[in-house]
Amino acid sequence: MYIVCSDLEGVLVPEIWINVAQKTGIKELELTTRDIPDYDVLMKKRLSILHKHGLKIDDIKEVVDSMEPLEGAVEFLEWLRSCVPVIIASDTFVQFAGPLMKKLGWPTLFCNSLQIDSDGSINGYALRLQDGKRQAILSLRNLNYKTIAVGDSYNDVSMLKEADTGIFFRPPDNIKNEFPELTASYSYEELKNIIKKII
Amino acid sequence: MYIVCSDLEGVLVPEIWINVAQKTGIKELELTTRDIPDYDVLMKKRLSILHKHGLKIDDIKEVVDSMEPLEGAVEFLEWLRSCVPVIIASDTFVQFAGPLMKKLGWPTLFCNSLQIDSDGSINGYALRLQDGKRQAILSLRNLNYKTIAVGDSYNDVSMLKEADTGIFFRPPDNIKNEFPELTASYSYEELKNIIKKII
Repeated sequence: MYIVCSDLEGVLVPEIWINVAQKTGIKELELTTRDIPDYDVLMKKRLSILHKHGLKIDDIKEVVDSMEPLEGAVEFLEWLRSCVPVIIASDTFVQFAGPLMKKLGWPTLFCNSLQIDSDGSINGYALRLQDGKRQAILSLRNLNYKTIAVGDSYNDVSMLKEADTGIFFRPPDNIKNEFPELTASYSYEELKNIIKKII
Repeated sequence: MYIVCSDLEGVLVPEIWINVAQKTGIKELELTTRDIPDYDVLMKKRLSILHKHGLKIDDIKEVVDSMEPLEGAVEFLEWLRSCVPVIIASDTFVQFAGPLMKKLGWPTLFCNSLQIDSDGSINGYALRLQDGKRQAILSLRNLNYKTIAVGDSYNDVSMLKEADTGIFFRPPDNIKNEFPELTASYSYEELKNIIKKII
């Protein structure tokens, strides 16, 4: 029996932090795991930028509330969930992912959490565990599932490589070229066809 | 961070085999895990009854297609998924669970599979793994989740006992009395309140 683990941002919804950067006009927040592979370095940088500009959890939530899933993502995910169980494995945070998960029809999300002060300042973050996306694959394999993983970025690579089948979805050229052993897809139709052949 | 593992039949949807018994008029198919704790004994009995009466996979599918979730289950599950990630851990079979999962909004289902001949006869079943519900809890704990489990029957007890919190939902009196250490709830409202207090 198969199960799919899919990344969230870049695969089903736009990059949240890029949207925060655009809506707040803070250009430095545009960096993602596509640019800085070390997630801890990236997150510490993001939090220090938020702090410098006095942005709090409600400011981020407001941006996320205004976002929509990528075009075709809702239909793709509906199709996928009708074929196989699906887990969304993401490095996003439970405190602001809600509105987008609702728009996607509440798929099961494995993610992380922010540490928030009583005044709404974000003072840190807690990874649920190190290399959580890859660990999700290992756990599902222990439950006797064959695993298919989908992602677009550096922080997905260990999950994509660990899965029985790892598939890039719209990876940037530099990441695609760095991992030529992983199949790449550029539309939901293409991704659907690859998954259909496997299951 | 919390995650909920919930049983399917008896908690969110009616017992599928009882419905098959009623719609086909075959009284012997009314037995469930509430009556026969050994799942393998129960399933072998069910399959031999199907065989005797010439019932095939499409006959079971037809019954499942006509079933609806329990009253209030869709709303309860929508609420639950807005609070925590949810996994449905069930001993049901992927070949006929689909229509009910669709009516529940495609939650992530961990279940088993039937072995079906080319003529549609069900010739056996494959457990994905032994004690799969409890194994799900162990895997989620390895992913650093605190676990809440909900179930109604003998085949849920190992999952309920393994979880950080195990909650019965409408258990029959004999099962409830056998495991007085597990909290019991009898309505979605009551179950909601117990879960709210934990998370």
